[in-house]
Amino acid sequence: MRFLIPLISSSITSGHYRITSRLLSAHLTKPQRSTLHPFFNCQPPSMAASEESLRKALAEKQSAVEAHGNAVRALKAAKASKQEIDAAIEALNSLKLEKSSIEKQLHAAVSGSDGDGALSREAFRQAAVNTLERRLFYIPSFKIYRGVAGLYDYGPPGCAVKSNVLAFWRQHFVLEENMLEVDCPCVTPEVVLKASGHVDKFTDLMVKDEKTGTCYRADHLLKDFCNEKLQKDLTISAEKAAELKHVLATLDDLSAEALGAKIKEYGITAPDTKNPLSDPYPFNLMFQTSIGPSGLSPGYMRPETAQGIFVNFKDLYYYNGNKLPFAAAQIGQAFRNEISPRQGLLRVREFTLAEIEHFVDPEDKSHPKYSEVVDLEFLMFPRDEQMSGQSAKKILLGDAVSKGTVNNETLGYFIGRVYLFLTRLGIDKDRLRFRQHLANEMAHYAADCWDAEIECSYGWIECVGIADRSAYDLRAHSDKSGVPLVAAEKFSEPREVEKLVIAPVKKELGLAFKGSQKNVVEALEAMNEKEALEMKAALESKGEVEFYVCTLGKIVPIKKNMVSISKEKKKEHQRVFTPSVIEPSFGIGRIIYCLFEHSFYTRPSKAGDEQLNVFRFPPLVAPIKCTVFPLVQNQQYEDVAKVISKSLTTAGISHKIDITGTSIGKRYARTDELGVPFAITVDSTKDVTIRERDSKLQVRVGVEEAALVVKSVTDGLRTWEDVWEKYPHHTSGSADD
Amino acid sequence: MRFLIPLISSSITSGHYRITSRLLSAHLTKPQRSTLHPFFNCQPPSMAASEESLRKALAEKQSAVEAHGNAVRALKAAKASKQEIDAAIEALNSLKLEKSSIEKQLHAAVSGSDGDGALSREAFRQAAVNTLERRLFYIPSFKIYRGVAGLYDYGPPGCAVKSNVLAFWRQHFVLEENMLEVDCPCVTPEVVLKASGHVDKFTDLMVKDEKTGTCYRADHLLKDFCNEKLQKDLTISAEKAAELKHVLATLDDLSAEALGAKIKEYGITAPDTKNPLSDPYPFNLMFQTSIGPSGLSPGYMRPETAQGIFVNFKDLYYYNGNKLPFAAAQIGQAFRNEISPRQGLLRVREFTLAEIEHFVDPEDKSHPKYSEVVDLEFLMFPRDEQMSGQSAKKILLGDAVSKGTVNNETLGYFIGRVYLFLTRLGIDKDRLRFRQHLANEMAHYAADCWDAEIECSYGWIECVGIADRSAYDLRAHSDKSGVPLVAAEKFSEPREVEKLVIAPVKKELGLAFKGSQKNVVEALEAMNEKEALEMKAALESKGEVEFYVCTLGKIVPIKKNMVSISKEKKKEHQRVFTPSVIEPSFGIGRIIYCLFEHSFYTRPSKAGDEQLNVFRFPPLVAPIKCTVFPLVQNQQYEDVAKVISKSLTTAGISHKIDITGTSIGKRYARTDELGVPFAITVDSTKDVTIRERDSKLQVRVGVEEAALVVKSVTDGLRTWEDVWEKYPHHTSGSADD
Repeated sequence: MRFLIPLISSSITSGHYRITSRLLSAHLTKPQRSTLHPFFNCQPPSMAASEESLRKALAEKQSAVEAHGNAVRALKAAKASKQEIDAAIEALNSLKLEKSSIEKQLHAAVSGSDGDGALSREAFRQAAVNTLERRLFYIPSFKIYRGVAGLYDYGPPGCAVKSNVLAFWRQHFVLEENMLEVDCPCVTPEVVLKASGHVDKFTDLMVKDEKTGTCYRADHLLKDFCNEKLQKDLTISAEKAAELKHVLATLDDLSAEALGAKIKEYGITAPDTKNPLSDPYPFNLMFQTSIGPSGLSPGYMRPETAQGIFVNFKDLYYYNGNKLPFAAAQIGQAFRNEISPRQGLLRVREFTLAEIEHFVDPEDKSHPKYSEVVDLEFLMFPRDEQMSGQSAKKILLGDAVSKGTVNNETLGYFIGRVYLFLTRLGIDKDRLRFRQHLANEMAHYAADCWDAEIECSYGWIECVGIADRSAYDLRAHSDKSGVPLVAAEKFSEPREVEKLVIAPVKKELGLAFKGSQKNVVEALEAMNEKEALEMKAALESKGEVEFYVCTLGKIVPIKKNMVSISKEKKKEHQRVFTPSVIEPSFGIGRIIYCLFEHSFYTRPSKAGDEQLNVFRFPPLVAPIKCTVFPLVQNQQYEDVAKVISKSLTTAGISHKIDITGTSIGKRYARTDELGVPFAITVDSTKDVTIRERDSKLQVRVGVEEAALVVKSVTDGLRTWEDVWEKYPHHTSGSADD
Repeated sequence: MRFLIPLISSSITSGHYRITSRLLSAHLTKPQRSTLHPFFNCQPPSMAASEESLRKALAEKQSAVEAHGNAVRALKAAKASKQEIDAAIEALNSLKLEKSSIEKQLHAAVSGSDGDGALSREAFRQAAVNTLERRLFYIPSFKIYRGVAGLYDYGPPGCAVKSNVLAFWRQHFVLEENMLEVDCPCVTPEVVLKASGHVDKFTDLMVKDEKTGTCYRADHLLKDFCNEKLQKDLTISAEKAAELKHVLATLDDLSAEALGAKIKEYGITAPDTKNPLSDPYPFNLMFQTSIGPSGLSPGYMRPETAQGIFVNFKDLYYYNGNKLPFAAAQIGQAFRNEISPRQGLLRVREFTLAEIEHFVDPEDKSHPKYSEVVDLEFLMFPRDEQMSGQSAKKILLGDAVSKGTVNNETLGYFIGRVYLFLTRLGIDKDRLRFRQHLANEMAHYAADCWDAEIECSYGWIECVGIADRSAYDLRAHSDKSGVPLVAAEKFSEPREVEKLVIAPVKKELGLAFKGSQKNVVEALEAMNEKEALEMKAALESKGEVEFYVCTLGKIVPIKKNMVSISKEKKKEHQRVFTPSVIEPSFGIGRIIYCLFEHSFYTRPSKAGDEQLNVFRFPPLVAPIKCTVFPLVQNQQYEDVAKVISKSLTTAGISHKIDITGTSIGKRYARTDELGVPFAITVDSTKDVTIRERDSKLQVRVGVEEAALVVKSVTDGLRTWEDVWEKYPHHTSGSADD
């Protein structure tokens, strides 16, 4: 995924072209726009309306309470009758109750339509994260040195999950599609990232505490201020609330100046010290270093893996027999020197990306395997639905492509493949949606862009970006390197084409423009067909035209004898063009974190005295596929366990033997917490039981068969239901005790 | 693999302790000592002797030629008879011939005992590297921008080989041994690498061209000078040659001053400009960067993956149920900002390491699976053999351990496992040896260290280091972080132990030594048992002793009333200790490059008009396992090919269909060059042929069986010989045409 860098992007708000120095396109490590834009929420539009009316009602009720309070005081001062005063007080109390009720409703409304939900999401996350960290799925890096924000280690089970996810990614994309996988270094010389635009534009706006020098992300401070105000200060007017919401919605589009102005206007200070803040200024997010000993060759740790593929396009195209389409892929580390990382595994300074660059002829974006995904139906969130305040809905992929909602077949094909990939990993399909970028989110050159967003306790998180980036990247590297990164379509027989020929007459131009001759020649040659033919017509009718030379910044007169414009017929044997690229880009760490949340649940222990944690990982991603438990400590059983362990190793099934004397229930609980799908318990030398994690059901299987049964389910050759049907059930009450 | 850092190392040459500021221990990315030390060569010692006598003979012959030349001139001047002069000239010519013959012998001797061998090694490497780069096994990174020295991309087949090697590594080590795999970031804060010693000591000595500023590795320049002199200047005396060889042998031990002095003495100048050079100074080889926006948190790209494991020891020990031994493992990128990288894939600035840290009780280094490797026999090169000028020889691993050549069972076990790993990948066992580090190569804290060295066209290359590093790393991080990284052995019942108690009497010491009291107290408390008991005896007999306080640098008198020394009995419930670590560390890129060379061969085409390239990769590492070729372009055959392709995909066998109309022989040649072991050729709709790459033998197999046959051989369930025995042979002459 590129985080690029629309130098000129058409804005939906102003309707004209403008220059922007900030990143507009969403990307893996930017904040979720969905949490900023109210119309991205799943919350129906009526909710927002009710919030507004509640604020108005609250303000009215507040006035009424005050007026009534004054009335009561007046009655008391006027020594009115006790009856009169009591009646007035009763009315006042009833008004206060109404006010308090409105406050509660408003509070619920601003906390995302269900205040309890937000609380329980937070509690759920805490439970999941506690389990994840305690069982070493992941841990803050360099913990004994008090860690570094935004850097995490995967411990043994997390590392196994990651390696399973990557192995499946390779199987599902690289092998299945015959992609050309490459492996390029992280250390990247400046010239490459200059061409891609990262050196100049890959920045976030930063402010500094003017006294301590502590750095903050400017948009984070403004965002936190607005959210806090909206959620905690119920007295603000509906107008003020609308203004704050507008700021949140347009946060990503604000220039440094506009951001700075808002920070000043709201009186935002440094969160820790309350000191004044500097003006916002851009901070480049790449880790910089120096290549070689001279100190003269700046380099960066790559912010994405894609550039390594683009610079190799020529070789890869040749490797593919000079044929299109083909895809190249890369899995590797990427780096981003975040100003102040938050949100655990979702916003980190080093992460694993898996990226695909699928190169196609821009005139033919069909896909040979498109028919395989055409019938998939899942949550999609097209641009129009977002703009009109609707929510994501189930759409047939084939319909989305045929109606033009999704720009082309190849893009549609990859959206379908990504859906299959994520759901097979264990992502809940009801908390997965494909959101189309709004026009102002996309780079100007992009044809279309969809994000696979997964809902977790932090909201909807962009985990995969799928973009049709047209020819932008290859052109950028062609221009900078001087090496043409193009493809050719050979014609079966030569074709006659009409070509525009613009021939400036240098002698005449030299006489007329002297030192500026070169600029004028270049400007003439750069005309497109329409401009050239208009000039030709004008020169023929008037003999002279006015012509704007942008490199000179002025209009010059062009006479008929200074340029010859004609159309000539030529035979061409091939069509040379820059391929378009369709780029699915996977944030592996984000996918894994969402998978952790979607897999986590708790259930009461048999005794009912505690909640036990379970990860319902499918065997495909489970860190360990199987445990082997001798029921009691006993040499015979341990020998059987070793035999089974050996067969499991031969079958390539990762497993663990646990010969501790701990109760079998505790041992089950321990491995449920690691998401191990199957447990083989040895309670005889002939038959053993196999227990399935989520149903807790057990079957009896012969010792020599046990490994094969586990392997067949793990490899997806049969389901647990098949096993349950075929083998005798184990009904002993001892399980899970 | 740590490249550490013997601050004080016992030198075999001088026999006393000395401080050295350079790295002594060999490591993955340092030059091969074997190419520097004459006694590391496989060349027998007699060869070195013959070189010396040849130099002497040449010098004598040169004098004889000069003397005879003068004699001839004298005869001519004296107008001697033609007969006399002719006879003298004939003798002179015969002397010249003898001199030239000695020159040739000497030349052969200095080029490593066989000059033709060196040439053919160079030609072999050129052929292999050409094929590797042309078929995109690997390519210089950022080629369109003219590349960066020491950075390489793996293209599609190389990337597949790498991913196969890593998958097998994970299977062979992590799964088979139940290791705890972790995945830590590359970006590392300074404090971690300060503790490990890398910030201060991970340097190479550099010199600069004093006019242009170009940087060179000081030892490279000196090495090149010596080698060039030895090989090209045959006139140098035997004494001079011995001196140069001594310089080469001790190159790694030279201090900055000594290196600088040699460079001055030999008049070495900058290779490109002949300008004078600066004095050598240390250059830190880590890529430096800055973490976060403040610029106040320096960080580095890790130079090895091991530190990530050490800092997590406490959590991993807990995860393992607080039990030893256990091993943790990590695969990941490491970085080293080489001054001037050479030798292609062998010396790079970014590389993949796979490291194991096996933690053991220092009092028990046995290994439960040691018996599985005890009967392995392979080339070992113990310290003594190196010192006495012998060569590596086949040794039974069990003997090496039982005789104490290999320090302990666990170290021996890993040596055996590494041997199995490398040979199963396809490394030629006759070009693989395990070389023990010499005493001056090892860090002072290391118990023993063996390198798996693989011979390729560059000589013997260190590809895996297997070191018993004792408790050094954990202690370093305990000291720096203040977090104890220790293990405990719980006693089944409390043990009574006698403990030495040294109790300085501070009051008396204060009176006697005033401000120096603290130093004396610390020195007394630091005494070991032997010293303390000697002092106790002396105090009892004499009442006063002389005591050297190193922090004061002087001897002080200690009286009987100043310290009480006694032995007391205590009950202990556990023994707390810092575990030892045994560290096998794999340079994956180096192993892959050697594997490329060991797998590469050429054979004549059937027509005999050209040499065809083949990689004899075993199926385990082959980038693609199988190709599917319809014999001729034909819809029926293509349909069959697609059916087979689908079964191969289901079976998880990476493969490629080639439906081009190219001759079948050309298609075979193309895939032999990628090392594809099997080709399925579709020449009917019922049966197909399967061809094995190296034997070129073909069998006929039913369409529906083809994928399974290939899978069974690829998975190692049967051999090609089994298949050849079972299925009818295909004898058509059309194959390979």
